[in-house]
Amino acid sequence: MTKAPEAQHPVKAFGWAATDQSGHLSPLNFSRRATGDEDVRFKVLYCGICHSDLHSIKNEWGFSTYPLVPGHEIVGEVTEVGSKVNKVKVGDKVGVGCMVGACHSCEQCNNDLENYCPKMILTYNSIYHDGTITYGGFSDTMVANEHYIVRFPENLPLEAGAPLLCAGITVYSPLKYFGFAQPGKHIGIVGLGGLGHVAVKFAKAFGAKVTVISTSTSKKDEALEHLGADSFLVSRDPDQIQDAMNTMDGIIDTVSAVHPLLPLISLLKSHGTLVMVGAPDKPLELPVFPLIVGRKMVAGSAIGGMKETQEMIDFAAKHNITADIEVISMDYVNTAMERLAKGDVRYRFVIDVGNTLVATKP
Amino acid sequence: MTKAPEAQHPVKAFGWAATDQSGHLSPLNFSRRATGDEDVRFKVLYCGICHSDLHSIKNEWGFSTYPLVPGHEIVGEVTEVGSKVNKVKVGDKVGVGCMVGACHSCEQCNNDLENYCPKMILTYNSIYHDGTITYGGFSDTMVANEHYIVRFPENLPLEAGAPLLCAGITVYSPLKYFGFAQPGKHIGIVGLGGLGHVAVKFAKAFGAKVTVISTSTSKKDEALEHLGADSFLVSRDPDQIQDAMNTMDGIIDTVSAVHPLLPLISLLKSHGTLVMVGAPDKPLELPVFPLIVGRKMVAGSAIGGMKETQEMIDFAAKHNITADIEVISMDYVNTAMERLAKGDVRYRFVIDVGNTLVATKP
Repeated sequence: MTKAPEAQHPVKAFGWAATDQSGHLSPLNFSRRATGDEDVRFKVLYCGICHSDLHSIKNEWGFSTYPLVPGHEIVGEVTEVGSKVNKVKVGDKVGVGCMVGACHSCEQCNNDLENYCPKMILTYNSIYHDGTITYGGFSDTMVANEHYIVRFPENLPLEAGAPLLCAGITVYSPLKYFGFAQPGKHIGIVGLGGLGHVAVKFAKAFGAKVTVISTSTSKKDEALEHLGADSFLVSRDPDQIQDAMNTMDGIIDTVSAVHPLLPLISLLKSHGTLVMVGAPDKPLELPVFPLIVGRKMVAGSAIGGMKETQEMIDFAAKHNITADIEVISMDYVNTAMERLAKGDVRYRFVIDVGNTLVATKP
Repeated sequence: MTKAPEAQHPVKAFGWAATDQSGHLSPLNFSRRATGDEDVRFKVLYCGICHSDLHSIKNEWGFSTYPLVPGHEIVGEVTEVGSKVNKVKVGDKVGVGCMVGACHSCEQCNNDLENYCPKMILTYNSIYHDGTITYGGFSDTMVANEHYIVRFPENLPLEAGAPLLCAGITVYSPLKYFGFAQPGKHIGIVGLGGLGHVAVKFAKAFGAKVTVISTSTSKKDEALEHLGADSFLVSRDPDQIQDAMNTMDGIIDTVSAVHPLLPLISLLKSHGTLVMVGAPDKPLELPVFPLIVGRKMVAGSAIGGMKETQEMIDFAAKHNITADIEVISMDYVNTAMERLAKGDVRYRFVIDVGNTLVATKP
């Protein structure tokens, strides 16, 4: 732990890192562990930029350690596998999402819910089993235990599939768990960003009727015509909310800014559930009476387990679901972060790590 | 609707009513409908006092109409039945809870959830099918459609069983619906009042481990020794909360005052549910991050359907579950309301209507 990042492990690695809470990213030489018996090493080809990356590089959640190499929507091509690896072989296309470890002995792990394991290890800015800090996908090479490796089907594009590893599973898992993934259900999706636009696609693929709920009409045409939503609702328009009251079986709320819950709860049918997947940094106001009179629920959900993540990727490949992305070069990442902070991307930045990282070597 | 209460219907009735939002109760002559084909008429013997009665007589929810005859934990003996009534016969012991009507054609009604029917008719202060105002159980006689009549098993004491018709079903229904009613579950009960003390008894009868959560230690001995709770937790003691974090499968929160949810959410295991059955008049602060990282839920629940209410009464009779009550005479009711407002009752007032109402006739 006292060693410099480039001397901690035997395998040289190169990436981009934030070095302080300014969040500015710059080239970094570091290292990764040798390929263990159960490990899969791969050359990183693409890596999505998630809003959590922005929070993390700026230490907005208060637990960032520097240098911090972000990125947890990582895809690439296998270059080496350990002796006990069965899942993939050299040359296979694979991905790693938000986590790279867990205890594998608790109730959560035993139920394929490593994402809720109290000892879950995040893909970056977390302490691995060996005591070293984990580094993310803004880098040339990646290594992970095969349990955390997701197989990418041949027909799923790597660059547009990468964001599914975080944004995709974050919405897929609650759609399934809360019973929304059924034909005939009416599902609301709040916020049309990286998570929301993928949520619309999954909900439609499950056969649900989908209403996009947004603060303004600016994304209405895209929601209806491009993403295939069935209807569009402006959450700040009381008349529109009134007309749609008690019509939705479930709502996935992807907004991480502070916002009112009462209009959303009123849209739910009795026994419906509002699922929060974005985490506002301040508490929200919860009106209790509307929950009681309709036996309604407000829940949270965080990514998904590895088994379900593979299921989601396979489902996406089968139904041709990918993220809408803007591919950028590595040296554009600081500008991309600025644009992301303003919501200026439709809908996910993906870094072309494979083709553009090397050129940034000092 | 323009007729005076005593002239609206053919059957004379006498009870106690609030006549304005002072909430002061006084004797009132009114009337009830003739016994219809599907109706059951009964002589009221006991009626519990619920906290909603207090809210209603003072118009604290803003929709009270006067004169208002409260009372929705009503038990008595059948005196007359309509020609189509199969459920009970003259002389049977019966009860009526919070509702006396619904649409019987909507999805909720079709699923035995009349309590969530948008056209549900409350036992008092509601407009019945015939356009007249409904009057509650602080009265000598009661009439209701047999669908809303609950049969009281012989071994269930009428006076201590009466509060089950509201307090009992309010906690029984969420214990069942949210999967808490199972041996081995660890259930928290917040607030040891009319609802909470009955919740402890039901949860114990279901085989759960029960922890009472209260703001002070004042009810600790009663909770553990008298009600049979397994443990007791002071919600304002951070050390006690810390020690019990992530240990509960579910929590029933009966508190209707504004209170912090974060300590309660932190007590839940992953995938656990906090169920609100008391309705604070202001929104509560909902921290979202703790919901997300444990896929936790905050839900509401309101009484239960008629089928489940009968099931609850039969279960209570089988397991000797009754409310702990203080029986009072009708003319004590205003004092009882004052004491109830201060929480000075363990745990439910029940009016001995059968023996003490007549004496109050002017």
